[in-house]
Amino acid sequence: MSYTQIKLDIADGVATITLHRPEKMNAFTRVMMDEVIDAIDTTDADDSVRAVIVTGHGDRAFCAGADLTPEGGGHVFSDPNPVDDLSDERVRDGGGRLTLRLFNSKKPLIGACNGVAVGVGATMQLPFDIRLASDNARFGFVFARRGITPEAASSWFLPRLVGMQTALEWCMTGRIFDAGEALDRGLVRSVHPQGELMDAARGIAREIADNTSAVSVAMTRAMLWRLGAGGHPMDAHRIDSRAIYRLSRSEDAKEGIASFLEKRAPEYPDTVSGNMPDFYPWWDEPGYS
Amino acid sequence: MSYTQIKLDIADGVATITLHRPEKMNAFTRVMMDEVIDAIDTTDADDSVRAVIVTGHGDRAFCAGADLTPEGGGHVFSDPNPVDDLSDERVRDGGGRLTLRLFNSKKPLIGACNGVAVGVGATMQLPFDIRLASDNARFGFVFARRGITPEAASSWFLPRLVGMQTALEWCMTGRIFDAGEALDRGLVRSVHPQGELMDAARGIAREIADNTSAVSVAMTRAMLWRLGAGGHPMDAHRIDSRAIYRLSRSEDAKEGIASFLEKRAPEYPDTVSGNMPDFYPWWDEPGYS
Amino acid sequence: MSYTQIKLDIADGVATITLHRPEKMNAFTRVMMDEVIDAIDTTDADDSVRAVIVTGHGDRAFCAGADLTPEGGGHVFSDPNPVDDLSDERVRDGGGRLTLRLFNSKKPLIGACNGVAVGVGATMQLPFDIRLASDNARFGFVFARRGITPEAASSWFLPRLVGMQTALEWCMTGRIFDAGEALDRGLVRSVHPQGELMDAARGIAREIADNTSAVSVAMTRAMLWRLGAGGHPMDAHRIDSRAIYRLSRSEDAKEGIASFLEKRAPEYPDTVSGNMPDFYPWWDEPGYS
Repeated sequence: MSYTQIKLDIADGVATITLHRPEKMNAFTRVMMDEVIDAIDTTDADDSVRAVIVTGHGDRAFCAGADLTPEGGGHVFSDPNPVDDLSDERVRDGGGRLTLRLFNSKKPLIGACNGVAVGVGATMQLPFDIRLASDNARFGFVFARRGITPEAASSWFLPRLVGMQTALEWCMTGRIFDAGEALDRGLVRSVHPQGELMDAARGIAREIADNTSAVSVAMTRAMLWRLGAGGHPMDAHRIDSRAIYRLSRSEDAKEGIASFLEKRAPEYPDTVSGNMPDFYPWWDEPGYS
Repeated sequence: MSYTQIKLDIADGVATITLHRPEKMNAFTRVMMDEVIDAIDTTDADDSVRAVIVTGHGDRAFCAGADLTPEGGGHVFSDPNPVDDLSDERVRDGGGRLTLRLFNSKKPLIGACNGVAVGVGATMQLPFDIRLASDNARFGFVFARRGITPEAASSWFLPRLVGMQTALEWCMTGRIFDAGEALDRGLVRSVHPQGELMDAARGIAREIADNTSAVSVAMTRAMLWRLGAGGHPMDAHRIDSRAIYRLSRSEDAKEGIASFLEKRAPEYPDTVSGNMPDFYPWWDEPGYS
Repeated sequence: MSYTQIKLDIADGVATITLHRPEKMNAFTRVMMDEVIDAIDTTDADDSVRAVIVTGHGDRAFCAGADLTPEGGGHVFSDPNPVDDLSDERVRDGGGRLTLRLFNSKKPLIGACNGVAVGVGATMQLPFDIRLASDNARFGFVFARRGITPEAASSWFLPRLVGMQTALEWCMTGRIFDAGEALDRGLVRSVHPQGELMDAARGIAREIADNTSAVSVAMTRAMLWRLGAGGHPMDAHRIDSRAIYRLSRSEDAKEGIASFLEKRAPEYPDTVSGNMPDFYPWWDEPGYS
């Protein structure tokens, strides 16, 4: 596969995947999703690869979220043929397809967040094993400010990484926060000057590549995520795919996008009493006895 | 419903529930439980409400725990007709009825802990989404010092909020700790001078109310708690209701209360070998194969 | 039972278990496993014991890991009769037998880590309720550097104590880290000068013994671990027993041990494409619909 929106470099046992849409702040598309998944298939199959670094091109953005312009192509917001059956594969969120593939990686994933990371640009980092950030990095789980919901199975990943209180605050306010807060709350393990970020990521990759058994590391990765985290992110992927499919067609989503693009305060028309999606609640309420 | 032990104010999209028993340090009763549950039913049904702040009246106490005096009314310790069937609804812990209702809130819950919070005054805060404290706040999961056990499904909530080590230390020692320790261990997200606490809570409420979709926030809240926390607090509610029902009638509970009221060191007569409740262990021990 | 590799002292309501192989940095053996399990049976059955402190003899090591020398006796690496049926009891990891017994303790377990703690010397501490360390303590989840995998159900315990990011970093790099990092990441609750470590541990033990009901504490311990942690460490014990059984006989394990003993960089021959153990993957991949 020849890539058009990412770069894949393999050298000295370390693969580097670079999100690469210079003119678009590396915004996420269906093509980028396919290419990153293909790159992970490649790094899993290549025994010479002992660790994978994921970063963004340039010094401004890791990934500015889903590309909502026509160029983004095939995005849920612009789907011309909506379906009613929410188990239909066309409902599946692309961010979740990617994070579930990352979840199953046999190689360690090290994130080097080199700038802005919002929406799927933030949630795609959650199944990385270790996350580093540059000092100019900014994060935002902005979904509630666009009239939609957290995707990419982030409702499963985020509380397991930063605790429930921080996950709720970030997702319910949708506010942007900086690298210092990301470090303080445990989202990233360290913050580095922009120019030193990649060296720090490579240092951890080298520590793994030079000292450990590849089979040990692949087993360790599977054991910790599957026995230490509890449950499976597919449960979240099923729900958030349906939620984002329904809500992305809502009046609140229209207003969320419009007010964002017009840089004005939003006025959301939908209500909790009248506009929750039809599959809510998706759980059976347990009885006491 | 007209309230006698709480206040409910709704203004500008933000509801404020104030525990209000000035002469009793806002101690918890069955009446207060019913009133807070009713208030949450109200805020859930009122589409104008975008966030709910919960605080206590005055500058000394958020809630001093269960009211053990006759005025407290209907408390388990003084139940004249004990039942043997532990699935009997009369066994159900009142704190757990409240926290399970808070767990299901469609609106974000912001705690403003304005002083002493012990026993159910501490555990009722755990299903809040975001917890703030005044600098004179103090917390205590004091159950083991009264001969009883953690209630209100706190054995489910607390480790998910502060980690297992801190949860175990706080609950097994039963000691009182201050706002600084609550912040350091992650129980509260920030500490504020007493006079600035409510403004800080309102600031977060405004951030949500002014920028986000109500449907997005309701969905986000359900998704994070249900997909990110793992399991369900009803499992804890079933067990802790039975535990506190049995143990509140034990010799250790009598001694725990008596020594507390008499301000002396306790001498607990019960033993692990002879006095564990009849439903212990409540689990099937898994085999190896 | 008369002990040869540990000491058990009971005084004033507090039991102290001391790992005691002065000439071997308290390295772990099958005999030590049996003796610690027996000591926990004793402290559980003795109603006078209100808390248990676990420490290592001397001021250098808590436990230097599994004793790989012939004296260690019966270790998996030297098992002369390998079995194919991975549910065979002979496959069961000894570290996991110990941590599962600690998990079921009715008495609070307080760790006083007085020096080096690597391999099973680190993992055996995870089911303790509260962990303290001396300022010269060092920890290492070194398994990937020996060609094997985390054992003693540590893939279940560790992420629940320090979060997924830290657990993955420590286990995938296998690097040694000091007491300061253990404190910073939440593995230990406090660090003390070597000479003050035991007094600090005894202070917490006294806080529990002097103020709480033994029945309350036993119930609290079971409730938090079983309702607050989610799942059961037996799931991890089944998998890691099989993993360590298979991998300890691998070429990578031979190279891991040899390079360690010869103090040289390892050259691991096994590959992810060819040498994953036969029971991997051990899970069914969930479908979307």
